[in-house]
Amino acid sequence: MIQEIIGYLGGIFIMISFVPQVIKSYKTRSVADLSLWMIIATLIGTIFWIIYGYFIKSSPVLVMNIIFGIIVLYQLFLKIKYEK
Amino acid sequence: MIQEIIGYLGGIFIMISFVPQVIKSYKTRSVADLSLWMIIATLIGTIFWIIYGYFIKSSPVLVMNIIFGIIVLYQLFLKIKYEK
Repeated sequence: MIQEIIGYLGGIFIMISFVPQVIKSYKTRSVADLSLWMIIATLIGTIFWIIYGYFIKSSPVLVMNIIFGIIVLYQLFLKIKYEK
Repeated sequence: MIQEIIGYLGGIFIMISFVPQVIKSYKTRSVADLSLWMIIATLIGTIFWIIYGYFIKSSPVLVMNIIFGIIVLYQLFLKIKYEK
């Protein structure tokens, strides 16, 4: 039980991690210091985990990664949009 | 078997995602566009997953998150070091 909570907590922190980044990029319109490959690698990893979550029929893995994926995808959009 | 490979691939991509970011920050010495809270939230999530991996006795979860955690910790160091 406690280990599951710890696992979920880890997932929640990773899931929301890009939220402050998206807000910052959106507000400042400055994304030069962000690595495009960091965003792309994160997105690819997330896509693999969505497929994995579907295969193992794990709703938490699936849901958390879909939400995380959408946030990271929006970060990618901001990176491309505001890149000089 | 195939689902495990997909799970591992996801983990590997996430694990290496911060490598290009660390290289970029190290080279440019510019970290203003990076969200400190993104790095901290990622680090906290990773610490939870290291504990989780230890609890469930999963070597892949443990090893991948320790490696990822070290990279993210170095990114945090670069963020603090080069922050104006």
